[in-house]
Amino acid sequence: MVQDLSDKANLLIQALPYIQKFNKETIVIKYGGNAMVHPLLKDAVIKDIVLLSLVGINIVVVHGGGPDINDMLAKIQKESRFIDGLRYTDQETMDIVQQVLCGKVNKNLVSLINRVGGKAVGLCGMDGGMICGVQLKKQDKDYGLVGEIVNINPEVVNDTLDKGYIPVISSVAQGIDGNSVYNINADTAAAKLSVALGAIKLILLTDVRGIMNNVDDNDSLISQITLEGIPLLKERNIISGGMIPKVDCCVEALNGGVERTHIIDGRIAHSILIELLSDEGIGTMITKG
Amino acid sequence: MVQDLSDKANLLIQALPYIQKFNKETIVIKYGGNAMVHPLLKDAVIKDIVLLSLVGINIVVVHGGGPDINDMLAKIQKESRFIDGLRYTDQETMDIVQQVLCGKVNKNLVSLINRVGGKAVGLCGMDGGMICGVQLKKQDKDYGLVGEIVNINPEVVNDTLDKGYIPVISSVAQGIDGNSVYNINADTAAAKLSVALGAIKLILLTDVRGIMNNVDDNDSLISQITLEGIPLLKERNIISGGMIPKVDCCVEALNGGVERTHIIDGRIAHSILIELLSDEGIGTMITKG
Amino acid sequence: MVQDLSDKANLLIQALPYIQKFNKETIVIKYGGNAMVHPLLKDAVIKDIVLLSLVGINIVVVHGGGPDINDMLAKIQKESRFIDGLRYTDQETMDIVQQVLCGKVNKNLVSLINRVGGKAVGLCGMDGGMICGVQLKKQDKDYGLVGEIVNINPEVVNDTLDKGYIPVISSVAQGIDGNSVYNINADTAAAKLSVALGAIKLILLTDVRGIMNNVDDNDSLISQITLEGIPLLKERNIISGGMIPKVDCCVEALNGGVERTHIIDGRIAHSILIELLSDEGIGTMITKG
Amino acid sequence: MVQDLSDKANLLIQALPYIQKFNKETIVIKYGGNAMVHPLLKDAVIKDIVLLSLVGINIVVVHGGGPDINDMLAKIQKESRFIDGLRYTDQETMDIVQQVLCGKVNKNLVSLINRVGGKAVGLCGMDGGMICGVQLKKQDKDYGLVGEIVNINPEVVNDTLDKGYIPVISSVAQGIDGNSVYNINADTAAAKLSVALGAIKLILLTDVRGIMNNVDDNDSLISQITLEGIPLLKERNIISGGMIPKVDCCVEALNGGVERTHIIDGRIAHSILIELLSDEGIGTMITKG
Amino acid sequence: MVQDLSDKANLLIQALPYIQKFNKETIVIKYGGNAMVHPLLKDAVIKDIVLLSLVGINIVVVHGGGPDINDMLAKIQKESRFIDGLRYTDQETMDIVQQVLCGKVNKNLVSLINRVGGKAVGLCGMDGGMICGVQLKKQDKDYGLVGEIVNINPEVVNDTLDKGYIPVISSVAQGIDGNSVYNINADTAAAKLSVALGAIKLILLTDVRGIMNNVDDNDSLISQITLEGIPLLKERNIISGGMIPKVDCCVEALNGGVERTHIIDGRIAHSILIELLSDEGIGTMITKG
Amino acid sequence: MVQDLSDKANLLIQALPYIQKFNKETIVIKYGGNAMVHPLLKDAVIKDIVLLSLVGINIVVVHGGGPDINDMLAKIQKESRFIDGLRYTDQETMDIVQQVLCGKVNKNLVSLINRVGGKAVGLCGMDGGMICGVQLKKQDKDYGLVGEIVNINPEVVNDTLDKGYIPVISSVAQGIDGNSVYNINADTAAAKLSVALGAIKLILLTDVRGIMNNVDDNDSLISQITLEGIPLLKERNIISGGMIPKVDCCVEALNGGVERTHIIDGRIAHSILIELLSDEGIGTMITKG
Repeated sequence: MVQDLSDKANLLIQALPYIQKFNKETIVIKYGGNAMVHPLLKDAVIKDIVLLSLVGINIVVVHGGGPDINDMLAKIQKESRFIDGLRYTDQETMDIVQQVLCGKVNKNLVSLINRVGGKAVGLCGMDGGMICGVQLKKQDKDYGLVGEIVNINPEVVNDTLDKGYIPVISSVAQGIDGNSVYNINADTAAAKLSVALGAIKLILLTDVRGIMNNVDDNDSLISQITLEGIPLLKERNIISGGMIPKVDCCVEALNGGVERTHIIDGRIAHSILIELLSDEGIGTMITKG
Repeated sequence: MVQDLSDKANLLIQALPYIQKFNKETIVIKYGGNAMVHPLLKDAVIKDIVLLSLVGINIVVVHGGGPDINDMLAKIQKESRFIDGLRYTDQETMDIVQQVLCGKVNKNLVSLINRVGGKAVGLCGMDGGMICGVQLKKQDKDYGLVGEIVNINPEVVNDTLDKGYIPVISSVAQGIDGNSVYNINADTAAAKLSVALGAIKLILLTDVRGIMNNVDDNDSLISQITLEGIPLLKERNIISGGMIPKVDCCVEALNGGVERTHIIDGRIAHSILIELLSDEGIGTMITKG
Repeated sequence: MVQDLSDKANLLIQALPYIQKFNKETIVIKYGGNAMVHPLLKDAVIKDIVLLSLVGINIVVVHGGGPDINDMLAKIQKESRFIDGLRYTDQETMDIVQQVLCGKVNKNLVSLINRVGGKAVGLCGMDGGMICGVQLKKQDKDYGLVGEIVNINPEVVNDTLDKGYIPVISSVAQGIDGNSVYNINADTAAAKLSVALGAIKLILLTDVRGIMNNVDDNDSLISQITLEGIPLLKERNIISGGMIPKVDCCVEALNGGVERTHIIDGRIAHSILIELLSDEGIGTMITKG
Repeated sequence: MVQDLSDKANLLIQALPYIQKFNKETIVIKYGGNAMVHPLLKDAVIKDIVLLSLVGINIVVVHGGGPDINDMLAKIQKESRFIDGLRYTDQETMDIVQQVLCGKVNKNLVSLINRVGGKAVGLCGMDGGMICGVQLKKQDKDYGLVGEIVNINPEVVNDTLDKGYIPVISSVAQGIDGNSVYNINADTAAAKLSVALGAIKLILLTDVRGIMNNVDDNDSLISQITLEGIPLLKERNIISGGMIPKVDCCVEALNGGVERTHIIDGRIAHSILIELLSDEGIGTMITKG
Repeated sequence: MVQDLSDKANLLIQALPYIQKFNKETIVIKYGGNAMVHPLLKDAVIKDIVLLSLVGINIVVVHGGGPDINDMLAKIQKESRFIDGLRYTDQETMDIVQQVLCGKVNKNLVSLINRVGGKAVGLCGMDGGMICGVQLKKQDKDYGLVGEIVNINPEVVNDTLDKGYIPVISSVAQGIDGNSVYNINADTAAAKLSVALGAIKLILLTDVRGIMNNVDDNDSLISQITLEGIPLLKERNIISGGMIPKVDCCVEALNGGVERTHIIDGRIAHSILIELLSDEGIGTMITKG
Repeated sequence: MVQDLSDKANLLIQALPYIQKFNKETIVIKYGGNAMVHPLLKDAVIKDIVLLSLVGINIVVVHGGGPDINDMLAKIQKESRFIDGLRYTDQETMDIVQQVLCGKVNKNLVSLINRVGGKAVGLCGMDGGMICGVQLKKQDKDYGLVGEIVNINPEVVNDTLDKGYIPVISSVAQGIDGNSVYNINADTAAAKLSVALGAIKLILLTDVRGIMNNVDDNDSLISQITLEGIPLLKERNIISGGMIPKVDCCVEALNGGVERTHIIDGRIAHSILIELLSDEGIGTMITKG
């Protein structure tokens, strides 16, 4: 038994160089998908966040909340129209999006973090004027209150980190072109926040293993690519579909000074911890070069 | 015209002794009722808050949100059952309460404060574990997820005040008797927060003029009473109905060390400013003695 | 009456954007003339200063003290000789200037500010070595102990602002060309201090309405001019006589980085407040361009 | 020569234990008499103050200014009436007292300290509301604007010490029984300030050697007495005349917590330094017991 | 493989509640015996210390150094005389003790900690006057320069912790009864330091499993005892021989306010980590009751 | 006697301008030679250090320890081999060097400083990773563990100065090319530390008067030279032998930004104080130009 305990301790010790590397650094985690729905996975993510915060890493959580929004829209029997894959967001929909994200998903995450001994504060783009947006305009199409970010003011995030809290952030923006609130993409918000905060790492939790040469073959995972390798992978449709915007967020973060970005599988318990505190990355890491 | 300008300046100067009196002190404002519904009144309250914050007073806003909750419940065709005047709160109702309060009403207030140049952060009882509650038990009756406060941890409020923000707080509590979130009374939350924060003043915005000898006679407003005067006024039904719990909140605050409490009329534009920065109190002030 | 109170509150609210604009900024006020002699005007100035300080503006007061100096010289039956409009200042005169400015006028202002609840400290150019001067030399003429400023060391002013005091400053300089103390022009001292302190505003209180097209016509006040407009106004004698050195002080401040300078009428009660906290400037504002 | 230099260095080293003892402590020095008039003695005092400040002792200087006041009163041909040894102080006299003390004597001291490389700020009882007084009432006699101290607010002194300045303080008080300024005894002010500041030492510079058994015999100096020895010395007229109020100030300081008080001879160059930095006290030290 | 990684991560997560419990607390570790001699064990201890320091625990290391001292004494062919089990320490021996402990063992530990990325500073009882001792006197026997501690001044330890260092401390005391340096027992020094520092835990690394009912039976380890259980265990010789002074050190620490003390087996790799970050204590824990 | 005391005080006053000049500056003193051996000289140096520290100068002491090392090597009958004047340092020798320097000489200095009321901490190149070295390589000769400095990390020195300690530093380096510790030249360490700390002065205590035109003629001391004068003095053999590396250290310090360097005579009591606090430099000062 003693040997067994020593082995366990040895595992902890293996995390030492990683903890040292990230100590006092900021890491932005985009939290979404299965890891947000499945209770056991959720519990694992929350504990990962609290542990990482406790070993001296500034953890910033950005979340979406698709399923809860859909549930609520269904409850009020509101049907959504989609344009180019984007939900047309009228005022009634926006109200639902805002209250579900900022009031339910966000505060429930805060509550979960508190319950395992962390210290979290739930924020959204309106708090301290953090995320400023305007209406999205693409080829003169009208998506309603879908917005794009024009400015990030990270002061309120830094203030809460400074006071020892884990900021949990809903991806909703305060409009600067009127009194509106805008629905913004959470991946994009996470990427832009990671730049504004001078983070060293951006982690996108997804429902896939990462970028794969062959999506049907788990062994075909590409562990690491650089910026310059991306165009070819897009050309060959290895980066395709929903992976394209995620990779684009990573590119934006890297160009903004973030050192490393990771697309990892939220369906694996403790995937964040594994990615951060071991050599065995389990997703795809994208670096500058 | 010059005389006119001097007269205006003189009015500003009359506020000087009040600003001096409250400088660096904390004042808790329970915001609700008409002042939260009517756009012009809302605008006046927001500006009052920003101005008071700017002249060096620590303003803490606690809000309820009845009408918005009702609207949302109506939208999902949820009927509420009332027990002793309290809404029986099942899990579905509680979800609506939480998301409307913390996600809609709260963040909209934050946004409004930002838009007139203030610096606000929207919090709820879960953030930083601020408000801890248990299920309300009165004579073994079951009100569902209606809660009562067992502990206030004001750290997160002080941290945000310390960093120069106006904390705006939704009256929802984190359960310590399970994983629940509880619906709590906003007046009570404001009273207990005013004690925990060492506030000098608690202001309850209502839809009446204050405590009145005769509710039909505006001139019968009682401007000031002390703790010891309250029992008689209750006996005589001058304090009655919905006024009773409000007065009880004031009593709790006063017994906890708050210097003065005010029940004022939110239907009058700038009633907060008038009450704070002039001799002409326009509501009822309750003091210890 | 309630409407009346709301109107008053509205007036306060109108000051909000101005308070926001000047919050945490430094404003240097040159205080002199009638506003320093007439008790009611004096009282208004003092209250303006305390109010502005309380709403978060760093107020620095620089004062002269002509009439009190004259009274004291008369008392000791000392006659003054004037050269080019400057009082020839022998050692005995200088002693009187110093003691009246630093000991009487200065400390009485401090006392008045304290009495309305402000927190002032009375300083002069010698304190902390703040204002360093040499003997004025113009075309080899000898003006005795009239000095000109060669260096401003703003440390002691910043230290007192930092500790929350309103510094009140007598325009007397410590000589660096010997053991002398020099009599210096208060307008110039205010202008140079505004530059050294990185002030955003310099306000000169005078006994005229401002720069006027026709001094006999109150309606001919020029509300705003820029640096480039000044030469023409001098040429046309619209800026002439005692107004020339005042305008030159403004020019020096503007060239040193001060954003706006104001020549306002100290004979109007609360002219400082009116100028700062309303759109209706009542004097002449000179800006860079 | 080398031996000579080593001897000199040795002298410096002998000051070491005294510097260690007083490091970071506060010492109040009442400066007056000959040491304030004679240029060489003045120079010695100034240098003592700067040196002591530099070796880490918080030096607070309180000064009177009798001769300069008399000169100025003579200049305006004002005759003084004395009641029980106290100058009856009418408003005109008070103005002279204030301006000479706060404007001339005080600021000249500040200037002298600056010139030898110290960092001084000149204050009086009005600055920051430091010394609050009322009209002196003794057996219903009227002494005009002679005041007595009712309260010391040491905040402004601590603030200036905190920022590294040597505060130089004129003994003039702000009246709390009206708008008056009061002339107060400098010894008393020094004693009360030493208590309010938590000083470990009060030093009164005088024009005598100390308390002497026989005033005509320099060798009869009493080097040290305790509180309980004082009544007998008074009885025997060894403490008599002008020495009585000085000893009473020491008693007040000692009873207020000051550790040691010293009555030393300002006519001896560097008497402060000798008293503080050597075993050979050259005046009379009064201790608690 | 993914499951394997998740299992590893799960192990890290199991440490979470312990890390939370000790966060920002101080733990004193007496380091000695085999764990200081065997390279692999030494490496494990060093990594444990760095990891614990990194997760926010204030680690203070106190060490002895018997074997190295013996080696050096052997080298200079110095024979030691023992009195009651204590080495009689003459001046020559003391010099060796001091230089081996403070110069070799201490600085080598510091170097090892640095090499795995920690930040250590090597101190001894003389640094900052931390440990003050006198000559040990027991029944008038003379043990030479063996000392006992009379006072701990923890300032220098707190200062280094405050600046983020791991203080490594040699158990040598500065004599206050002359110019001597004294050889002091490292267990005692650790116990007294844990009290002076307000530590929550004292850990003694030994070469045995802990307190055992039967020293020949590994399964007879007593995992936990309280203060009141100790006399009986001594009576029964279960606590006997070299274990007695170790248990006495624990008693002293507990009586001084330390919460828990641990006697653990330094021959087990990572025994510190196992004891601190898991439920499975592997030594004997002594608590107050 | 009074005159005598005044004269003494005057001597203290003469130190004033020097104390002012060095206040809050850092001075590195290389301590070695006779001043480290002779008890009276040692006592004088220690008191000089404590006094200078007390008057607000940041004193950093770097020491060697030749005689003690030789004594210890003799005791273990270890003979040293010298190559080009450098002691070939095998592992056994290095162990002795380290333990004598860091454990004996260093901590004894710390103890002496404490005993006269200073506050010292003993450090070496390993503490906080302060001095990083590699094996010395000169023309492929092997000197064993003689090292040269590749990097100074002054953080731990600044941290101890910041907390009010006098850091006393042994010239031993942590190897970055393996696990070794290296023996490094103390003069060089002092010079490189003076640069890394931004010191204004480097003082090398030696056993000669300074640089002398004729070593047999005490009156031929060269009081001051500049960088450009050095080549000629070397050419003329006026700078020769052991003086060459000392002068080279001064050159390195001057080129690194140190203002003045001094080679002074440690055989003269208080030579440090004399050099710093008087005009009469008693050694050779080397300045940039």
